[in-house]
Amino acid sequence: MSSIFTKIINREIPAYIIYEDDYVVSFLDISPLEYGHCLVVPKVEIDYIFDLEQESYAYLFATVKKIAAVLQKNVPCLRVGLAVVGLEVPHAHIHLVPLHNLGSIDFKKNRAQVTVEAFEGLSKIMKMDLEAL
Amino acid sequence: MSSIFTKIINREIPAYIIYEDDYVVSFLDISPLEYGHCLVVPKVEIDYIFDLEQESYAYLFATVKKIAAVLQKNVPCLRVGLAVVGLEVPHAHIHLVPLHNLGSIDFKKNRAQVTVEAFEGLSKIMKMDLEAL
Repeated sequence: MSSIFTKIINREIPAYIIYEDDYVVSFLDISPLEYGHCLVVPKVEIDYIFDLEQESYAYLFATVKKIAAVLQKNVPCLRVGLAVVGLEVPHAHIHLVPLHNLGSIDFKKNRAQVTVEAFEGLSKIMKMDLEAL
Repeated sequence: MSSIFTKIINREIPAYIIYEDDYVVSFLDISPLEYGHCLVVPKVEIDYIFDLEQESYAYLFATVKKIAAVLQKNVPCLRVGLAVVGLEVPHAHIHLVPLHNLGSIDFKKNRAQVTVEAFEGLSKIMKMDLEAL
């Protein structure tokens, strides 16, 4: 069975996609740790990030760097943090989280409440900025 | 003033170093989230990881991949997680944390208690394994 991220890639379930190319997709986390939290996902459905071939792994992290810059431009924060946990969805993914304090990255905490309008607005502007790179 | 990590690189303060080359150093976190938690640090004293030049950034993450494999070999865990926060020390660093549950990456939690003997033993075997790559 396809992972939830493969279903997003295949447009079987909706997501606020902000970036996509042949190898990587990125979208806003629907249950964000902080407003602006997004996921960067290799299209190849591999479970463990460190099992990616070096070339795919390098490309994924190079893409992360671009997305982090656009995220920081559009969401006020101290900086953008990064986390890879991977215990819940068996498809490698990198969390980019706008940091406000040391508790911003805590996967057991209550999630931020974000309206559909805010998700739509942020995803549109980030997509536009990423396309302009 | 030098960062605490530059002081480690310059051997002004001690650390359980497991890897070092011209560009990157890695050592066990002295106040670990979980046993085996280590830091991977670019020698250049830059504050924000996404400000690294693309080449240095790529080399840093390629090194992280090698260290994660050796960490997983030597510390029983579900997988190795990764985090970049950077709100406390103004010198970019990547946390590699052996994951046991969703709470393994939580920078506000109580730290694992590790004996000097365990730090020494683990750092020696990881250093040996990394030199053998």
